[in-house]
Amino acid sequence: MTAKPMSITRKVLAMGLAGGMGVAATPALAEVSTETAFVLNTFSFLVHGFLVMFMAAGFAMLESGLVRSKNTAAICLKNIALYSIAGIMYYLIGYNLMYVGDSISWIGSVTLLYNPGDSEIALLAAGDDAAAAAAPLAAAVDNGYSVASDWFFQMVFVATAASIVSGTIAERAKFWPFMIFVAVLTGIIYPIQGSWTWGQGWLAQMGFSDFAGSTIVHSVGGWAALVGALIIGARKGKFGPGGTIHPMPGANLPLATLGTFILWFGWFGFNGGSQLALGSAADAIAMSIVYVNTNLAAAGGVVAAMVLTGAIYRKIDLTMVLNGAIGGLVSITAGPDLQNHLVAIIVGAIGGILVVVAVPLIDRLKIDDVVGAISAHLVCGIWGTLAVGIFGSANFGVQIVGILAIGAFVVITSGIVWGILRFTTGVRVTDEEENEGLDKAELGMEAYPEFGAGSQR
Amino acid sequence: MTAKPMSITRKVLAMGLAGGMGVAATPALAEVSTETAFVLNTFSFLVHGFLVMFMAAGFAMLESGLVRSKNTAAICLKNIALYSIAGIMYYLIGYNLMYVGDSISWIGSVTLLYNPGDSEIALLAAGDDAAAAAAPLAAAVDNGYSVASDWFFQMVFVATAASIVSGTIAERAKFWPFMIFVAVLTGIIYPIQGSWTWGQGWLAQMGFSDFAGSTIVHSVGGWAALVGALIIGARKGKFGPGGTIHPMPGANLPLATLGTFILWFGWFGFNGGSQLALGSAADAIAMSIVYVNTNLAAAGGVVAAMVLTGAIYRKIDLTMVLNGAIGGLVSITAGPDLQNHLVAIIVGAIGGILVVVAVPLIDRLKIDDVVGAISAHLVCGIWGTLAVGIFGSANFGVQIVGILAIGAFVVITSGIVWGILRFTTGVRVTDEEENEGLDKAELGMEAYPEFGAGSQR
Amino acid sequence: MTAKPMSITRKVLAMGLAGGMGVAATPALAEVSTETAFVLNTFSFLVHGFLVMFMAAGFAMLESGLVRSKNTAAICLKNIALYSIAGIMYYLIGYNLMYVGDSISWIGSVTLLYNPGDSEIALLAAGDDAAAAAAPLAAAVDNGYSVASDWFFQMVFVATAASIVSGTIAERAKFWPFMIFVAVLTGIIYPIQGSWTWGQGWLAQMGFSDFAGSTIVHSVGGWAALVGALIIGARKGKFGPGGTIHPMPGANLPLATLGTFILWFGWFGFNGGSQLALGSAADAIAMSIVYVNTNLAAAGGVVAAMVLTGAIYRKIDLTMVLNGAIGGLVSITAGPDLQNHLVAIIVGAIGGILVVVAVPLIDRLKIDDVVGAISAHLVCGIWGTLAVGIFGSANFGVQIVGILAIGAFVVITSGIVWGILRFTTGVRVTDEEENEGLDKAELGMEAYPEFGAGSQR
Repeated sequence: MTAKPMSITRKVLAMGLAGGMGVAATPALAEVSTETAFVLNTFSFLVHGFLVMFMAAGFAMLESGLVRSKNTAAICLKNIALYSIAGIMYYLIGYNLMYVGDSISWIGSVTLLYNPGDSEIALLAAGDDAAAAAAPLAAAVDNGYSVASDWFFQMVFVATAASIVSGTIAERAKFWPFMIFVAVLTGIIYPIQGSWTWGQGWLAQMGFSDFAGSTIVHSVGGWAALVGALIIGARKGKFGPGGTIHPMPGANLPLATLGTFILWFGWFGFNGGSQLALGSAADAIAMSIVYVNTNLAAAGGVVAAMVLTGAIYRKIDLTMVLNGAIGGLVSITAGPDLQNHLVAIIVGAIGGILVVVAVPLIDRLKIDDVVGAISAHLVCGIWGTLAVGIFGSANFGVQIVGILAIGAFVVITSGIVWGILRFTTGVRVTDEEENEGLDKAELGMEAYPEFGAGSQR
Repeated sequence: MTAKPMSITRKVLAMGLAGGMGVAATPALAEVSTETAFVLNTFSFLVHGFLVMFMAAGFAMLESGLVRSKNTAAICLKNIALYSIAGIMYYLIGYNLMYVGDSISWIGSVTLLYNPGDSEIALLAAGDDAAAAAAPLAAAVDNGYSVASDWFFQMVFVATAASIVSGTIAERAKFWPFMIFVAVLTGIIYPIQGSWTWGQGWLAQMGFSDFAGSTIVHSVGGWAALVGALIIGARKGKFGPGGTIHPMPGANLPLATLGTFILWFGWFGFNGGSQLALGSAADAIAMSIVYVNTNLAAAGGVVAAMVLTGAIYRKIDLTMVLNGAIGGLVSITAGPDLQNHLVAIIVGAIGGILVVVAVPLIDRLKIDDVVGAISAHLVCGIWGTLAVGIFGSANFGVQIVGILAIGAFVVITSGIVWGILRFTTGVRVTDEEENEGLDKAELGMEAYPEFGAGSQR
Repeated sequence: MTAKPMSITRKVLAMGLAGGMGVAATPALAEVSTETAFVLNTFSFLVHGFLVMFMAAGFAMLESGLVRSKNTAAICLKNIALYSIAGIMYYLIGYNLMYVGDSISWIGSVTLLYNPGDSEIALLAAGDDAAAAAAPLAAAVDNGYSVASDWFFQMVFVATAASIVSGTIAERAKFWPFMIFVAVLTGIIYPIQGSWTWGQGWLAQMGFSDFAGSTIVHSVGGWAALVGALIIGARKGKFGPGGTIHPMPGANLPLATLGTFILWFGWFGFNGGSQLALGSAADAIAMSIVYVNTNLAAAGGVVAAMVLTGAIYRKIDLTMVLNGAIGGLVSITAGPDLQNHLVAIIVGAIGGILVVVAVPLIDRLKIDDVVGAISAHLVCGIWGTLAVGIFGSANFGVQIVGILAIGAFVVITSGIVWGILRFTTGVRVTDEEENEGLDKAELGMEAYPEFGAGSQR
């Protein structure tokens, strides 16, 4: 556990190969200029933002692989649709609710639309006219980053929360009502609770600590999914009489594996970008630590889930291992800035164990979670948030307050929305449509028209 | 629509967690040094270039998912082959035709190969010898970016244009003639028309405006695909007597969905990188705006296609929604620098509507476009280019001149190449090979040898 | 072959569109500050590291596509498990063995765990206290990059080496023994030989040159795979009497294609990041050259494999072309810093040819390599390392010494580990389990439960 500050690397060799340049040739110690810091901060939001955006593909593939083939096209549609609606709603109203306002405590600003800053527009208009550019440049740089880059980065987070819901309620939720739910979740519910912490509201002032959103993103998605699963009900035939549980295996496990790898890949953006700055050596160091912890926690989740399912069932359940990776990632998300990476492995491994324990438990409660999202995102989200109170600098009691307050808010508001939808549009397809599969019923097509069982249906 | 320059973000919290560093600790206002700007500009080309490179995978998956299983391995082969040939041709001749020359008006330089700059090679050779490095360093930095990084970024664009063609003419085009077409398209046709605008040729001098290539990349690919579809003809059985159209559904819709998500992901490189610089706050701001507009236009395309197909057909066609996303992306590509993001949503939504309208129309014209590329890339490419004349600063008449000039050039030159191929090598497989599927006929293998119908063929 | 230092690009146009900013507006020549260089070096490790991490998904998809459907879930499990174990082992012991120590010659430090540097932790603790931050900031910046970022980048390399093995020995290797092998390979074998060159050990001192690991990563994986294949033996029925070879085609070729594209995408991180610095114009130029050569070598491998299989077999074998891309990439990996890109095309094309020649040869030797990894990674790894002695600045004899020394070490150590496993845990499943498929035997599930043949098994 001793730190080794000076590692020997390939650099010397590479310097020789490439002609001798490298760090050694750089000038004496000098700081990062403010405008350079602005560019680096902004670019960090963009790069990490596109990584998180790609998580939408990860969720789509994970869920495509874990549903039955008759519902595959429908889940693909839901995923691309919810990502789109999330972005539009967050532009129309959500970002302002979450982040804008002079003093945020319970809610941000209720103004509509979120566009570039005035100083930014003035700077772009000034062009090569250095005199005209001076004042707006100073004002823009003083903000630390481009406002559009921050919007982009925050937007992909709200989309993640919505993605979590779609998997749990797959194979029986009606399309349009779910889209309405997504619009409310991403435009209103998520932003309001987000403002409490990340918008410097009351939870932030209490000291609630959630680096990249174990609670604020993953548990929020998990709570909304749980309420949805309860109100929509289980798939026909999932739970039989006498507590029997009928397995309904996913149709395409390599796609589920791909989805998990994409999520893991995107999580470097999710956690790494949540450092929120790259304009100094300290930020770069902190961000690097976050990357390493993120990776090791996921690895811990995989190994723990693998060993545990192997020990319990004598067979190693791939879907459990995939959820173990996700559980490890969710668990470290509240505190990926730990300075001892061994702790990250432990936090992630506990996440993997929780998934293996929670999935059958939730089944036994007759809650039908098609992809295991409640276990991976809600249970591990709670664990990760508590872990910051154990291994990090946060106050354990405050962490519990945050978990409960956000949980209560999301359960109540989601419940109201799902409830209204249930008694107006309805929230699930007919039994006939469910038997036929949502692909034919709602989309009029098949995901795999030529393959096996699918081709006979 | 009011701009909010100072958003409250998670930064304050993160600063607290990570030890208090952040923008606040950086020094007083100072500029980006020229060498730093050089590094940032270069890195932007590399990062955005690898994103666009990945679009080759996106096209491969989109097309793999939308063809029938008997032609799936063949379309995979075509996609990896065309990406390879595009890169080699652009290195051998294309880049020089497009960008090199003292004064370009109708065509660039016809010299062969494109290698690093002399000053760059001298700088690398100088190594740690600061005296020897001084002059070449100044010369290299004065160029603003590494020439290889620019080549890389431009190369992935030409590959995109070629990728568009393969989808339209899938399932009946012969392999080697198509490869010859790709070589001519990427080595000669694309670069010459590209030089007119991006090589500072006559269209640029007229003021034609196409930020990242709605016309120069997407419509060019679309025109070449249209001409190919006309000369090669429709798949056997696609169009029956009396105007009947026989649907030939794609074999693997989750792969098509994945392909669309990959394209969306890569498009941040396509449009964001086309800012062409990251060495100042103004560039970083402009790039961020481009990212946001790119995302929102795609979202607009998705929602519009979803609502429209839902309204018209009562079922929501997934492939139409996927093409709606692509249509939205293509539509914003000519002008993603709009400073009001609401306009980007509208531009993208119109793109999504155009796709839904154009796909059946092109079917009715008995043009067999397997994946809908003509609708998404050509029709929306034209729309996006016109939109810059409506919402942006471009002259509407000049935009029309550019669209028509480039369209005429590509239609004529593509027609000549496809025509020559038709009367020499032939451009389509035999009826027997088409029935058997290209996988067995041209590759001697099956894409899915164990799955359903595929395993019996 | 003449270099063109000043290309005309889209920049002028984009500057006009975006309001006139760009490189032209930046100040007079000035250097990169040391702290900025630190940030850029670190961010390069992170960005290129996440690209290489994604190669784990590439290997998973490539192998998923090339095995039969009854072994698909098992290979997915192996890939996510080995990536996880590699990371944990490299943290526990591997990185220290490879890189840490005052003077490394045959082995690094045998200390456990690798955490952030003391100066880095002090800097983070100092926060906004500029006085307290000054000394640790200077010390951290003097290291050139964050140590965690370097760990992350090096870790994804060791995972790549392990990924190579899983493909060769797929469809019959037992799960847990393979995991033990992975732990030893990534924790001990790979790091020790890696220290010889990249840890500045005896091979580096001799002048052995392997920029990004044709030998150190790819051949190492290839040798371990070869020894594994020999000790585990061929799949039942693969090799019949009288030298007959029974083809066992992969179940899902679009996934194999996707995997190859992901590997290609990730390789920009693999080779580009191996420049190991981004803090100067010279580094940015060198990195850009690496990107271009990487892409062109892969393209050369594709075209060579395509033309050769077309010429020999009259049909173009997709799997051979995919391996041609990988062979081209592996071939350029030892020397992607060539300053004439034409040479990169040639080096890659020879790699593609070697794959087409080696695959049937290895079959004839009755070595059962399920995915062709020995050909693509070992054979081309040797070729690429030799190529640096031909086209690069390395001494040909020293290159041979390195190839032989590393090969001998890995063959012997892998052989010992595989041998011990064979006589303790056993290394392959029973014939019955092999017939049934590893998915059912070891995981108790099916990868594609609803598709065709798979649904009957």
